[in-house]
Amino acid sequence: MAASTDKIREVVEAYVRLVADGKATEVADLYADDATVEDPVGTDVRRGREAILEFYGGLEGMEASTTLHQVKIAAGEAVFSFELVTKVGDKSYTVAPIDHMVFDEDGKITAMRAFWDPATDMSVS
Amino acid sequence: MAASTDKIREVVEAYVRLVADGKATEVADLYADDATVEDPVGTDVRRGREAILEFYGGLEGMEASTTLHQVKIAAGEAVFSFELVTKVGDKSYTVAPIDHMVFDEDGKITAMRAFWDPATDMSVS
Repeated sequence: MAASTDKIREVVEAYVRLVADGKATEVADLYADDATVEDPVGTDVRRGREAILEFYGGLEGMEASTTLHQVKIAAGEAVFSFELVTKVGDKSYTVAPIDHMVFDEDGKITAMRAFWDPATDMSVS
Repeated sequence: MAASTDKIREVVEAYVRLVADGKATEVADLYADDATVEDPVGTDVRRGREAILEFYGGLEGMEASTTLHQVKIAAGEAVFSFELVTKVGDKSYTVAPIDHMVFDEDGKITAMRAFWDPATDMSVS
């Protein structure tokens, strides 16, 4: 049975919050053990907790904020648009993806694919 | 080779425009012959031109308008948020999905999945 819409919404909200100010282990805890991450879509797929920890470890300790925009949930899957702003020195880097996530029956993420194009969905100010 | 970002953007824009005021055959022409449509996600997958024509035939002749919001394109795939407003009598029905499309090398849609929940992503005014 698919995870409930409420559970999925809760995980999406936790994900976007933790990407801004959580530890990599907290983000990885939202994923199933053998989950896959493709971010951005078209790059190598990372699989499993170690690879996922390494991926989110890159964000840890950065000054970052996130804003969740639209969330659509259907049949145990979600797509959602959000913005991630990271500050490095006096520059702000904004990435605006739409992520697709598939969830198992416990609400753990089994697959995430982030749709964004470095050429058009990233800006510096 | 994946279709170019420009080509995919053009097809997405044409799709959203034709859903509002095109013929079902014009929408179906954007699809590859054996394409699949799952709308909303979780319902039966329609496959092939006949099934796709039947699906979009339901919109033909309705007073409808669409607005394209965000479009994200990566590696021959797109996700995009839009709104479809149809008028029936003095009521307006608004559906706000995020669609995922996969394209072949010629820019034809090979798969479309529409993420929206009748409970939360549809409104009547």
